[in-house]
Amino acid sequence: MSLLEALRDSKQKRLDELFTFLRFPSVSAQSKHAADIRKCADWLRGRLSGMGLKCQIMETAGHPVVYAEKIVDLNKPTVLIYGHYDVQPPEPFELWRSGPFSPTLENGSIVARGSTDDKGQIYAHIAAVETHLTTTGTLPLNVKLMIEGEEEISSANLPGFIEKHRDLLKADIVVVSDGSQYAPGQPSVTHGLRGLVFIEIKVTGPNRDVHSGSFGGIINNPLNALCKIVAGLKDADNRVTVEGFYNDVLPTTDFEKRMWAKLPTDDRKFAGELGVPELVGESGFSTLERIWRRPTLDLNGITGGYQGEGAKTIIPSWATCKITMRLVPNQYPKKIMKAASAKIEALSPKGVTVEVFEHDGVPAVETPTDGPWLEAAGRALKTGFGVDPVFMKEGGSIPVVQVFKEKLGLDTLLIGFGQKDDGAHSPNERFRCEDFENGCRTATALLSELGAVKR
Amino acid sequence: MSLLEALRDSKQKRLDELFTFLRFPSVSAQSKHAADIRKCADWLRGRLSGMGLKCQIMETAGHPVVYAEKIVDLNKPTVLIYGHYDVQPPEPFELWRSGPFSPTLENGSIVARGSTDDKGQIYAHIAAVETHLTTTGTLPLNVKLMIEGEEEISSANLPGFIEKHRDLLKADIVVVSDGSQYAPGQPSVTHGLRGLVFIEIKVTGPNRDVHSGSFGGIINNPLNALCKIVAGLKDADNRVTVEGFYNDVLPTTDFEKRMWAKLPTDDRKFAGELGVPELVGESGFSTLERIWRRPTLDLNGITGGYQGEGAKTIIPSWATCKITMRLVPNQYPKKIMKAASAKIEALSPKGVTVEVFEHDGVPAVETPTDGPWLEAAGRALKTGFGVDPVFMKEGGSIPVVQVFKEKLGLDTLLIGFGQKDDGAHSPNERFRCEDFENGCRTATALLSELGAVKR
Repeated sequence: MSLLEALRDSKQKRLDELFTFLRFPSVSAQSKHAADIRKCADWLRGRLSGMGLKCQIMETAGHPVVYAEKIVDLNKPTVLIYGHYDVQPPEPFELWRSGPFSPTLENGSIVARGSTDDKGQIYAHIAAVETHLTTTGTLPLNVKLMIEGEEEISSANLPGFIEKHRDLLKADIVVVSDGSQYAPGQPSVTHGLRGLVFIEIKVTGPNRDVHSGSFGGIINNPLNALCKIVAGLKDADNRVTVEGFYNDVLPTTDFEKRMWAKLPTDDRKFAGELGVPELVGESGFSTLERIWRRPTLDLNGITGGYQGEGAKTIIPSWATCKITMRLVPNQYPKKIMKAASAKIEALSPKGVTVEVFEHDGVPAVETPTDGPWLEAAGRALKTGFGVDPVFMKEGGSIPVVQVFKEKLGLDTLLIGFGQKDDGAHSPNERFRCEDFENGCRTATALLSELGAVKR
Repeated sequence: MSLLEALRDSKQKRLDELFTFLRFPSVSAQSKHAADIRKCADWLRGRLSGMGLKCQIMETAGHPVVYAEKIVDLNKPTVLIYGHYDVQPPEPFELWRSGPFSPTLENGSIVARGSTDDKGQIYAHIAAVETHLTTTGTLPLNVKLMIEGEEEISSANLPGFIEKHRDLLKADIVVVSDGSQYAPGQPSVTHGLRGLVFIEIKVTGPNRDVHSGSFGGIINNPLNALCKIVAGLKDADNRVTVEGFYNDVLPTTDFEKRMWAKLPTDDRKFAGELGVPELVGESGFSTLERIWRRPTLDLNGITGGYQGEGAKTIIPSWATCKITMRLVPNQYPKKIMKAASAKIEALSPKGVTVEVFEHDGVPAVETPTDGPWLEAAGRALKTGFGVDPVFMKEGGSIPVVQVFKEKLGLDTLLIGFGQKDDGAHSPNERFRCEDFENGCRTATALLSELGAVKR
């Protein structure tokens, strides 16, 4: 039986198992789900051990890493496959058609939190390894799987983990499937990711919520103050006003210009799919440049004062917001973080106390656009999807890719099996069954292709 | 025996009865206390009937009104005394030194939910009526008492009630004791209240929360957009930018200037009590003018996106905020509401949808600063507190005062017996025993003084 035939036969079993995987509410950001995270890791370990891999749950200061390997021949190449078993918070619950952790099939898609990000995609690689093992009794190369539990909370403990286990993680190439294709039916290799800086602002006014009649007019309202600060972070051309924000930004390269010219874009259709009146961005740049080549600043959440029904006539004691900035190559997270804090301080009005909490930052990364590993990936994607892949970048961040380069000296093949409109991080997140099948086929072919690369 | 001697003799009895009144957890906002509200109203009816007043519990669509009257002589004036027997929710319980509904004496104060707001104050008027009846067998004028059960939930049913019972409520003057003196030992007559306009803004962006990496840079973020709009509603001098906002505002009158010059203010001490670094307000106006004479615009609440712990890297689908504007005499709620909506529309950036929800508005009210009723109140306050009252205004709104004017054509005497730091709406709410006694004396003298007014 061929590998592809074996995959066809295991279709229902693979789907059932992915559903089991998706039922764990492994929300890394919420401490109430710590036990669920652990249960999910245990399940993965059982699954990978059962396939014949040497597998262990490895502790970190936070949620554990599930690590598995099968060394078949030290003369053969070694691939390190990375993924994550943690998921984004599911809120707001009321917008889910079914429960976020009750996976369902809907119009040819698997709908559940984590379906595309990243349980469905890492599961395609697990299925690929199993398909080789059950069909041929062995693997075409040495395989190491590192599946972490903190990707959605910035992988704070992973760099230390990788540093500590450099020998264990030795490999020739890393594979990550935690993103999207360019479009349905158009597989792609992603050759770069934006970086990320996450900060929070807290504005404090009176020591308690006070009556907006008795005190309105004589104290600065922390909510109004926070809005003033946030509004001051961008100008009328949608450029970020943080001092030096664009200083280190490099122009679009010739290779990028050439590759991206091949990619169809339709702003009007894109706006329609998002349900916005029109696309809006930094003046002077194309849509692809705005997502892939330009840094951004966005609020992710804001809160303060009375949130319930009707009126409560108060000046609230405090207000907070969460801000992420996306970075591009050659920008430095710490530098941007410091500049942003300084700008926020400069924008802070009197009569309130403003605190900036500087959280994590990761730089943007660039990955190879040629070489034998990349060619192997190209052939595997063609086998899996039936079409040659295109080159694209990704506006999101996968912090670990930079760590692989720095700590292990390894390049990463970024081959996402999802779609941009899968709703990663949104209610009713989905993973198209077709993409899951093509992803499993690609991952299976990829092991063969990588195993044949001459080092 | 004189009235004041009778009051001295009844001191313990009055205190015991107020404690009984305070033990009813008559929390109008919480449906679990509906039966307690009813029991409290029943107790009041028994109390007022027992004194010899014609008293009934009158139904509304919500909690009932307790109405009592004694008509002694149709040639004499009639006073309508307004108060409320409902109280604010007591939460957070853990901050109360004793239970909120277990009144105690502490450092010369009565500590309990409702002690100053408004049971202690309305009870002073009840005690005054009883003192006259037990001492002289009659009253110096006709008295009508309207004690409602929904003040803490915006008195939604009261305007309809007053409209419906216009004949029953006919009077010459209204008396309301539901506020504060200017300072301890400094009684005051409040001669005006600010009005109020309440609106909400909703900004909608993408049709779902989307990934801030994949979409950051090409769509307008509803949170950033809302902050931009809100920031645009005030300028650097803390002036509201709504077109024509100040057009109808009248300058501080000579009477006010003269009266307020007598009132000590200490901005630094005030800021310290509120826990803010400094007071901040509209350029060119004093603290008292900013609260009593100038209109304001304040956010009461804002929400949008991820509110939980840690990061969630999304561009949220929507954001909302609640805004109240405090109005001063000669400003018209509908006109201000319209102008604010127009300004918000003008400030709305492209790429998002902005909706303004225009809710309630009440105009500012002014009450007499001279005339026989006011002079009567001044003499009563002097009898009660031993000091001549000062004139002040109040930055908050008591909507029913406007209703009395509109529906019954009546002016209101606003004479608060409490203190600004009594903690109305806060844990350990208190009413100073001294203020209770002086309040009972004032209320008793007020009936005599008002009864002597020549209409």
